[in-house]
Amino acid sequence: MKVLTEYLWFNTPARREMVRITDQVAQIVERSQVKEGIALVSAMHITSGVYVNDWEGGLIEDFGVWLEKLAPSGRDYRHHQTGEDNADAHLKRTIMGHQVVLPITRGKLDLGPWEQVFYAEFDGQRKKRVIVKVMGE
Amino acid sequence: MKVLTEYLWFNTPARREMVRITDQVAQIVERSQVKEGIALVSAMHITSGVYVNDWEGGLIEDFGVWLEKLAPSGRDYRHHQTGEDNADAHLKRTIMGHQVVLPITRGKLDLGPWEQVFYAEFDGQRKKRVIVKVMGE
Amino acid sequence: MKVLTEYLWFNTPARREMVRITDQVAQIVERSQVKEGIALVSAMHITSGVYVNDWEGGLIEDFGVWLEKLAPSGRDYRHHQTGEDNADAHLKRTIMGHQVVLPITRGKLDLGPWEQVFYAEFDGQRKKRVIVKVMGE
Repeated sequence: MKVLTEYLWFNTPARREMVRITDQVAQIVERSQVKEGIALVSAMHITSGVYVNDWEGGLIEDFGVWLEKLAPSGRDYRHHQTGEDNADAHLKRTIMGHQVVLPITRGKLDLGPWEQVFYAEFDGQRKKRVIVKVMGE
Repeated sequence: MKVLTEYLWFNTPARREMVRITDQVAQIVERSQVKEGIALVSAMHITSGVYVNDWEGGLIEDFGVWLEKLAPSGRDYRHHQTGEDNADAHLKRTIMGHQVVLPITRGKLDLGPWEQVFYAEFDGQRKKRVIVKVMGE
Repeated sequence: MKVLTEYLWFNTPARREMVRITDQVAQIVERSQVKEGIALVSAMHITSGVYVNDWEGGLIEDFGVWLEKLAPSGRDYRHHQTGEDNADAHLKRTIMGHQVVLPITRGKLDLGPWEQVFYAEFDGQRKKRVIVKVMGE
């Protein structure tokens, strides 16, 4: 079995940002030389996520509005008694999910026609990591 | 390591539908001859999902009502400026999740007594795929 | 390839409870002697989940309040016509997620500085299981 582990670093200019990472993950899969297997792509910080959905600016804005409605910022969360102000980021990332497992077939990511992989930052403007672990043969 | 990849096709009569796929996944696991490992079951379209929950008609209806409340259809989503009308389907599938990783033990899906695997369609009436990738030994 | 499967049992005193299980999973990873691979941690009951987030009491309370808002208990769910009273637990676990796949690097869980693994019980006070399947080399 082959295993390759790499880390992607992010430091987004905005506090909240969706960053498309499909190509970076595809390059790691290529470097791994895995032909049949999986790539785990998982946020290592607990106020960001990783998800698969559409690469369409309007929908990405819809996600932002929707997440703010379901998990509003600026509320009086108990978590903020620690001095933090990012409880909503923990909740938002829970809705989006913090990891995906991508299938690899014949040496490539086996994604549907519209599937794109995104890093979802909800408390950015500082360095954060995503692990990509490729396993297979 | 053994790897087997198969694709399930769906074309649901209704726009929204939950389809139980536990048996189809179990048959693929059997064909794979994997005794210890995992089966990744992942929707390849971004308006459908895959989830594990109860095979009980009332609860499945509850999911539909609940998802419509959390991610309503017929709103003025930005995504619809592209001509699409299915932004809610992208959101609903995000709540349900788009993939599961099922454990395989002694050659069988190692599921709890009530765990059933479902394909969740939120924009159906057309051909869509789910990948099933079985890996192990 | 090495594979080790173990089961964690829970019987929480409260109906709803978040139980930190990072150390138990880490011990299973150590027993597996897997140096590079993954650990699937998955709830085997459909009214509980497994998630990764912060080990901070205030945030854990925030999760409880938030989940009750998004998926309230005590409503007239169709599922309750079967005699059950736990439809909200099925919904809450859907938001939190029912499984995680944890990376293993150099023989240890490869988690970020604040990542902790939790078992999320939404209908406890009875025996329930989580499967931990470690795979790799």
